[in-house]
Amino acid sequence: MDNMKNRQVILKTRPIGAPKLTDFNLQITAKPSIAEGEVLLRSIYLSLDPYMRGRMSDAPSYAPPVALEDVMVGATVCQVEASNNEKFKLGDWVLAYSGWQDFSVSNGEDLLPLGRSPKTPSHALGIMGMPGFTAYMGLLDIAQPKSGETLVVAAATGAVGSVVGQIGKIKGCRVIAIAGGKEKCEYAKNVLGFDQCIDHKADDFAQQLIDACPDGIDIYYENVGGNVFDAVLPLLNTGARIPVCGLISQYNATQLPKGPDRLSLLMGTILVKRIKMQGFIIFDDYAHRYDEFAEQMTHWLKAGKIHYREHLVEGLENASDAFIGLLEGKNFGKLVIQVNNPL
Amino acid sequence: MDNMKNRQVILKTRPIGAPKLTDFNLQITAKPSIAEGEVLLRSIYLSLDPYMRGRMSDAPSYAPPVALEDVMVGATVCQVEASNNEKFKLGDWVLAYSGWQDFSVSNGEDLLPLGRSPKTPSHALGIMGMPGFTAYMGLLDIAQPKSGETLVVAAATGAVGSVVGQIGKIKGCRVIAIAGGKEKCEYAKNVLGFDQCIDHKADDFAQQLIDACPDGIDIYYENVGGNVFDAVLPLLNTGARIPVCGLISQYNATQLPKGPDRLSLLMGTILVKRIKMQGFIIFDDYAHRYDEFAEQMTHWLKAGKIHYREHLVEGLENASDAFIGLLEGKNFGKLVIQVNNPL
Repeated sequence: MDNMKNRQVILKTRPIGAPKLTDFNLQITAKPSIAEGEVLLRSIYLSLDPYMRGRMSDAPSYAPPVALEDVMVGATVCQVEASNNEKFKLGDWVLAYSGWQDFSVSNGEDLLPLGRSPKTPSHALGIMGMPGFTAYMGLLDIAQPKSGETLVVAAATGAVGSVVGQIGKIKGCRVIAIAGGKEKCEYAKNVLGFDQCIDHKADDFAQQLIDACPDGIDIYYENVGGNVFDAVLPLLNTGARIPVCGLISQYNATQLPKGPDRLSLLMGTILVKRIKMQGFIIFDDYAHRYDEFAEQMTHWLKAGKIHYREHLVEGLENASDAFIGLLEGKNFGKLVIQVNNPL
Repeated sequence: MDNMKNRQVILKTRPIGAPKLTDFNLQITAKPSIAEGEVLLRSIYLSLDPYMRGRMSDAPSYAPPVALEDVMVGATVCQVEASNNEKFKLGDWVLAYSGWQDFSVSNGEDLLPLGRSPKTPSHALGIMGMPGFTAYMGLLDIAQPKSGETLVVAAATGAVGSVVGQIGKIKGCRVIAIAGGKEKCEYAKNVLGFDQCIDHKADDFAQQLIDACPDGIDIYYENVGGNVFDAVLPLLNTGARIPVCGLISQYNATQLPKGPDRLSLLMGTILVKRIKMQGFIIFDDYAHRYDEFAEQMTHWLKAGKIHYREHLVEGLENASDAFIGLLEGKNFGKLVIQVNNPL
């Protein structure tokens, strides 16, 4: 990194279908300067998350899209490189939402302090941050698992799914994991401790799910949609709960699938089996419960009850490629870009 | 009625699509006799409800189907015509689930006493019974209406919808009703006090709904499905709630509609707008709250805050035809068959 420059990944064109490298552009601008009351942030870690695909489109959503030529948005863990704000000192670690770039400026109001020397600062983007909090509230508040219930979790080695499944085990559920490929499935069983893991790429995936759920499905934590949901739907038990957290398999879709139209089938299933489906946006719905989550998760981590895996990619210049891979399930663990070395 | 005979409406054939008169048969059997501990019940009122269509099919559902040649099931308000059970006296009124017939026998355990001379005994099948309770819990527990919100209720003059809308008004909602035909819409506005009523048979129904909901839809109480839900879906606000109580428009469907497949569209809407959809079966989910409901509803009725309309059809021999009409929306108010005169 040239310390006088600021590299920024901007949205160049809105993707049609899967994003391509040419939808992004890495531009070099001048390192920003700060006014009175402001701090200059040096990005150390950038979180890449599936929701960002939605920000690249201008379809109506819960948050406005990134404008063309604007810097891609995203959560970051930064260090204060210069400060004109008495609340922040050089070297302080903070959680920010400064996007895909080396440097940014803040008045301090949108920053969450992470201390002088946090042990694992990047965890604020994963297990202790949005993905971990999402897993926690979606499972515990919306699904309310009971001991002995069957919990199916897709993307089960990912940033959210891996935590959902492990909390499910803590709560006494039988956890059936779904992941892509043999390596992830072995990890899901042997490290994360899930009861079974099914490879969604297998030809007989739906049959394997039937075999793995002889008592049906009580909770399906929805992260993916598509053929996984299709296989889950007929197995749902009366009173099943479905927190709808993500639908990664359909983010790149350009049109609806061919018929028949199963909307009425889904509605009928919800009615007859009195199912609860609920979407949620973690900080909009649950910001007031973050402290409870942080305390509980810290406890579980210290007790060795939750394993957390990061997929670290070096260099902002690799962010676009890594993000494209994320939508294809190529990451293995929480995807984080190391943007710069710490101070 | 020949007082030595028992007329029974039995399920003769399972309907394909809409039920036909020939799917039912009125058979005459002997009036049953009672053993020690039993009571003989004389049906005065029989409730006809859309859920009965599900019982006529052998597709998996939350309750077993009526067997061929068996008496059609249904809630009834009866009088005790003879008793070998010390808890019940001749002439007592009870709520039973004795089905489409003149007489039945009970050991008393499945009966809810309604007293010696209830003022409006048939109300136990409607406003004070399953439909009223369904309206109450679905709206208040699942949807949790807030003052100023827009509530859309379909089948708005029906047994459930009319109560949903009126409770919505009590809670300060703007209530947009949907009903079939001018007469029902006038009643919905002028008697039930709803803010607007839209005729779902109108060619420009979807546009009328858009115009009626300038601030979007916060709660949609789902009773019908089909083209009403299609029009509601794009108008749902962030955080909308959808209690799924019934889907009368699709009960007679023999196959899924043509594509495209909008299942992913519905899932995506639930996610992006963080919508809660929840099916429920009233006595399975909420039996423990019946007393609360009964007390509140009695209060509202006495205070004139809830209007209740019954559609009374004379004669068990007309039940099949009335039920077929119910699925077509021909009833106007809670459909009840007067099976016999009171003792």
